Amino acid sequence: MTTIAFDVMGGDYGPHVSLTAALQCLSTHPHLKLLLVGDAAVIGELLGDRFAQVQQRLQVIHAPEVISMADKPVQAMRMKKKASMRVALELVAEGQAQACVSAGNTGALMALGKVIVRTLPGIDRPAIITRLPIEQCVTYLLDIGANVGCSADQLYQFAVMGSCLVRLLHDIPDPKVSLLNVGVEETKGNEPVRLAAQLLQGNDDINYSGFVEGDDIYKNKVNVVVCDGFVGNVALKVSEGLAAYIKNTVINAFQKVWWGRLLALLAQPVLKTIQQQLDPRYYNGASLLGLQGVVVKSHGAADALALQQAIGLAVYEVEKSIPDLLSKELEKILVS
Amino acid sequence: MTTIAFDVMGGDYGPHVSLTAALQCLSTHPHLKLLLVGDAAVIGELLGDRFAQVQQRLQVIHAPEVISMADKPVQAMRMKKKASMRVALELVAEGQAQACVSAGNTGALMALGKVIVRTLPGIDRPAIITRLPIEQCVTYLLDIGANVGCSADQLYQFAVMGSCLVRLLHDIPDPKVSLLNVGVEETKGNEPVRLAAQLLQGNDDINYSGFVEGDDIYKNKVNVVVCDGFVGNVALKVSEGLAAYIKNTVINAFQKVWWGRLLALLAQPVLKTIQQQLDPRYYNGASLLGLQGVVVKSHGAADALALQQAIGLAVYEVEKSIPDLLSKELEKILVS
Repeated sequence: MTTIAFDVMGGDYGPHVSLTAALQCLSTHPHLKLLLVGDAAVIGELLGDRFAQVQQRLQVIHAPEVISMADKPVQAMRMKKKASMRVALELVAEGQAQACVSAGNTGALMALGKVIVRTLPGIDRPAIITRLPIEQCVTYLLDIGANVGCSADQLYQFAVMGSCLVRLLHDIPDPKVSLLNVGVEETKGNEPVRLAAQLLQGNDDINYSGFVEGDDIYKNKVNVVVCDGFVGNVALKVSEGLAAYIKNTVINAFQKVWWGRLLALLAQPVLKTIQQQLDPRYYNGASLLGLQGVVVKSHGAADALALQQAIGLAVYEVEKSIPDLLSKELEKILVS
Repeated sequence: MTTIAFDVMGGDYGPHVSLTAALQCLSTHPHLKLLLVGDAAVIGELLGDRFAQVQQRLQVIHAPEVISMADKPVQAMRMKKKASMRVALELVAEGQAQACVSAGNTGALMALGKVIVRTLPGIDRPAIITRLPIEQCVTYLLDIGANVGCSADQLYQFAVMGSCLVRLLHDIPDPKVSLLNVGVEETKGNEPVRLAAQLLQGNDDINYSGFVEGDDIYKNKVNVVVCDGFVGNVALKVSEGLAAYIKNTVINAFQKVWWGRLLALLAQPVLKTIQQQLDPRYYNGASLLGLQGVVVKSHGAADALALQQAIGLAVYEVEKSIPDLLSKELEKILVS
């Protein structure tokens, strides 16, 4: 049985959507137990009689406070001791859950995760890593928003962690690792990026492929793309925004003429395949890498389908014993 | 007559493509004169007898050296005194041309532009600004790669310049200006971004709309998006890469089944419209904003069609007297 603490109060769409996702996950993962962390009265009312069928694998943990998107991490840590996010992380730290999933404030999750679940030896700060929505290849991007500025050492640690994660999750023996930069020439970029490149070149355990530019990350060139959290967050969100914009442009172009509408109707099966291949919801769930437990951040605007993927990722990381194996790998690579 | 110095040696596809673009521009812009800067022997051979028809409006300026993409800006400045890019900029500084267009090394163009064409009063460093390929709205992004790290003051200056440019080029009286960040809440981001926000809030001449996130830049929310050159470069190149990836995904999905190929054939007119709406070549050309003359950077991988847009942009900026008007506006805004 895998036990996951799920912060049902985080996320833009509220606990209703979280609970729909939770119940769906219990039916697709027969060995999953969920600890629903949040306001017990709200959860109880929303669950209603849906609770009965899975009550062995569902437990409500009362946490009356909520960390909002506008809360500063430091304030959230000091003031909201009974926040759902905090309680969910404490359940992991106490060993009552093997993973925590939250769609709440990223900065707070990062700060609380660091203090409560704690970092692995040799890691200064966790990074947030996500898989890019490219069906044909395995490409992970980190950090996507936990650390707005990074030293060369941090970027180096992110590269090592990313490489380990991809190796463990995807059975790719020697993942290609790169640094995101404004050019591929070694003179390009800022000092942290250039110094991190030197550190990576000096480590034989990492298959370092050099710098990549923004357009390279969708070319199936590398498995791990490393950057600071500001750059990674922008890269990811620009991708989301552009994908949505292109989708609208295509729909509008077909809707404009009657025979376009007819063609779109006839092409439904193909368009559906395309939409699924590009649907970011299927790739929702970003791991806080470098903590002593599994912590998965969901997109704030995740719907029930997207939240299920985040919970599914947490289950998979627990099954693969990611924090334990990562710790051993890091000891080997960072210490050697 | 508008005279433009065109560095025909820059760009990934070499002088052959540059010359095709040059000749095409002369036929579409009857009041344009081009100074073709580069290796005179190479240019002469490639031009052949095409030269005759437009020889009144075409002049070859010999510059035997080329700055490569791998050259460090400082080295390029010191060692390559006869580089095509440098000579093209000198023609602007000397008043022999009103603008310079180059598809060469961005860092070198920036460094040489600053020294040779010089910055406007009140501007520390120029920024590179480009229009995003969104047909429905006017959205400009700066800086896209000239300044990998920026102070709050620089970001503020970029915002002021971007606002002026959009007002002058598009007759938008009060362009909406925003700072690109990892969240819209004022606690988010790094110090330069937060301080720049305070500076912009304090300036009544700027219609400051607050922070935007990466996905907002394709939502027609704002006219000017300001960020440092590292972030802007990644945002732009990620967009390019994703657009190309989606295009391939769509083509492959339709090609997979025979009736998909048939539908794609029938949908050709619609697909062509979509492709044109999303074709980044039509938006090629980024201005080095903050210099005393018009300097336009073309994408390195620009083909002849794309290069024509860059030259067209330079012509338009000259016709609109951008540097002069920008200088007056800046004096008003930055000094007041």
